Amino acid sequence: MNTIKVAQNARAAANKFQYVTTQEKSVALDKIKNILTDKKQEIFKANRQDKENAEKLVNAGLLSASLFKRLDLEKGDKFDTMLKGISDIDQLPDPTGQITYSSKLDEGLELYRVTCPVGVLLVIFEARPEGGKESSFSLNALSTAIRSALADTVIPSDAIQLVETREEIKSLLDLDDYIDLVIPRGSNNLVKYIQSNTRIPVLGHADGLCSVYVDKDANLDKAVRIVVDSKVNYPAACNSAETLLVNRSILSTHLIPIATALQNANVRLHLDSESLSYLPTTNSSFIQECVNEDFDTEFLDLDIAVKVVGGVEEAIQHINSHGSKHTDSIVTENDQVAKRFMQGVDAAGVYWNASTRFADGFRYGFGAEVGVSTNKTHARGPVGLEGLVIYKYKLCGNGHIVGEFGEGSEKKKYLHENVDGTTNKTVL
Amino acid sequence: MNTIKVAQNARAAANKFQYVTTQEKSVALDKIKNILTDKKQEIFKANRQDKENAEKLVNAGLLSASLFKRLDLEKGDKFDTMLKGISDIDQLPDPTGQITYSSKLDEGLELYRVTCPVGVLLVIFEARPEGGKESSFSLNALSTAIRSALADTVIPSDAIQLVETREEIKSLLDLDDYIDLVIPRGSNNLVKYIQSNTRIPVLGHADGLCSVYVDKDANLDKAVRIVVDSKVNYPAACNSAETLLVNRSILSTHLIPIATALQNANVRLHLDSESLSYLPTTNSSFIQECVNEDFDTEFLDLDIAVKVVGGVEEAIQHINSHGSKHTDSIVTENDQVAKRFMQGVDAAGVYWNASTRFADGFRYGFGAEVGVSTNKTHARGPVGLEGLVIYKYKLCGNGHIVGEFGEGSEKKKYLHENVDGTTNKTVL
Repeated sequence: MNTIKVAQNARAAANKFQYVTTQEKSVALDKIKNILTDKKQEIFKANRQDKENAEKLVNAGLLSASLFKRLDLEKGDKFDTMLKGISDIDQLPDPTGQITYSSKLDEGLELYRVTCPVGVLLVIFEARPEGGKESSFSLNALSTAIRSALADTVIPSDAIQLVETREEIKSLLDLDDYIDLVIPRGSNNLVKYIQSNTRIPVLGHADGLCSVYVDKDANLDKAVRIVVDSKVNYPAACNSAETLLVNRSILSTHLIPIATALQNANVRLHLDSESLSYLPTTNSSFIQECVNEDFDTEFLDLDIAVKVVGGVEEAIQHINSHGSKHTDSIVTENDQVAKRFMQGVDAAGVYWNASTRFADGFRYGFGAEVGVSTNKTHARGPVGLEGLVIYKYKLCGNGHIVGEFGEGSEKKKYLHENVDGTTNKTVL
Repeated sequence: MNTIKVAQNARAAANKFQYVTTQEKSVALDKIKNILTDKKQEIFKANRQDKENAEKLVNAGLLSASLFKRLDLEKGDKFDTMLKGISDIDQLPDPTGQITYSSKLDEGLELYRVTCPVGVLLVIFEARPEGGKESSFSLNALSTAIRSALADTVIPSDAIQLVETREEIKSLLDLDDYIDLVIPRGSNNLVKYIQSNTRIPVLGHADGLCSVYVDKDANLDKAVRIVVDSKVNYPAACNSAETLLVNRSILSTHLIPIATALQNANVRLHLDSESLSYLPTTNSSFIQECVNEDFDTEFLDLDIAVKVVGGVEEAIQHINSHGSKHTDSIVTENDQVAKRFMQGVDAAGVYWNASTRFADGFRYGFGAEVGVSTNKTHARGPVGLEGLVIYKYKLCGNGHIVGEFGEGSEKKKYLHENVDGTTNKTVL
């Protein structure tokens, strides 16, 4: 495949996309939903080919059973959920065309900041069956269907193109003239590899090393609920907790109930020596002394590292040194301590008396989630449609030139006043 | 210099900065202004050392006279303008601590998106005397003064650190654990080099290849004013025009007056064969036939490439292929054509009947300018303080866990309602 051609076609499609109205986007989403409904059996047939190939990998021990399950589009209501997702997107307000700043610079010279699409996105899935090479037949069937739906709209079919090989991805990463944003979805290694190998901005969807800090003013019941939910609700998710920090002054009251609840949920505790000494001697396979690396490890499994800290400052420092800037929670009844934690922890999500598992675009109310960003620019945390949007400045004048402005009494001065909102309606 | 230590100190300072209040920032800005006023003579003395060294470079032909002039802090009101800039920043609203989104997810579970500083910035000046190695003594005097002002505030002195060698910069570019954003100021080559050699997000302040398109419905007087101002007001600036596109149907009426005005302003015209044929035969050294590369060249001088186009669509296509996504202007009395141009041109600034030279943070009313970004993520166009700001999500609950939400009648549903704004005031 000629990747330069792919990128140029994508750029041409993105340029046409700048004119597409909200109404035309709705029509396209509707047509996509209809064609996927019509082609359901064809897509399932392609999916079965992927599953047959994947089954061989599972039998050879090269693919996990849980990844195999994810590959299955026929299972349960997965396909209907996908269709509903398309309708949900259509229900969201169009994030483009919004005026987010305006200023009257001079009589007849008005500045508007208007949101618009970022442009060409290169989305890379790795080792995830929804998008990895294991789902090649399914993805081809899906993208062929979507392209044929678009052929019947004002949106060019090339708004969707599928690239599949590592070589193609590698060569696309060089094409910063045509591609505006790379969105890798996969492991930390994938994200780091891409960040190191492209000039194109990367919206990093790294995994998460999240912590829960149980403060000395924590309510015990809330602490137990939140720690257990943060760890066991879905251990493989990036927003599950990997580290538990416990205030020294409540070890005798809070640690045993929390540890017991975790063990009852089959969680293995990796405890520092101080917290270990508070637990009753036991032969439980759920209890072990931690090693230093445990505090830098994303277990993504029923494991949690436990550390005793002297107070909120030490908790903040630990999290800022070992965390992944994803989501961290404090359990406390003291609002000033909560405030300190939420200001001081440098993470996309800072929570007070709530489970880290709430870090999710749908739970936040975004309707759609592009992913969770641990970047500190553009979009941070769960990213909805707004992460795919930027703005341009539109300046409407009447022959205005800079040479007329400046110091001195004969020169014009910039007004920077409110825009009345009626004059340039026809061009915005 | 141990660059890891530099980066760690910067990170520690940035972490402390998360707690700094607007009032404390004002105090610090005031102290910085006072100390610079007090140390003026010391700074001038350092500046003279730089000028002595630079003078030798000028005499050896290694530094241009215009760069030498920029180096001079004693000249005119440059120093006072710098001091006034500090007061101006203090007058701007604090861009942090703003709530930009909120949602009540459940009774007692409220989500807030709150702006906060991006964190550690690595700002790199290249071959610019305000910041390049030619101004080493001046910069040392300035940063020493600012650090001593900060020592007297809650802001750590390490919030400002000076690194000077290429080797230090190179090793800092690897430290994505400590540095959040790189802001290069200098040539396109510098920006590309940095983008290719770091995983850290780069706020690209590239140069600009701006165009003016004179439409068939252009008012001649406005066209002349705007083309001349866009080209000659400050030819070395990134927002000056490098390309003039003229609609074919107005060549006989508009081209000669525009060309004459440009020539009167000493601008050399690089014309395509069609526009050249419309100009009276002349031996003028200001007129020459263009070469293809002229349309991809940032002259940054009194030169402009001229091309005839059939209409707005061709103008948009030319700009999207050859421009630098900086700022492009259309001259027309037809608002529908203007709208088409402003939608279709993929640039940070799209102007109607105004000079490209308005693309500037101060002119836009931002009070301070970090630079002009041709990126399409995070911040685009002239970037004010908001380019140094991101947000974090603060979630305030009361023991809420994800396991209680879900499908089925016994499970809670997310509310996604408006927040009343009083409940969590103490922690935000």
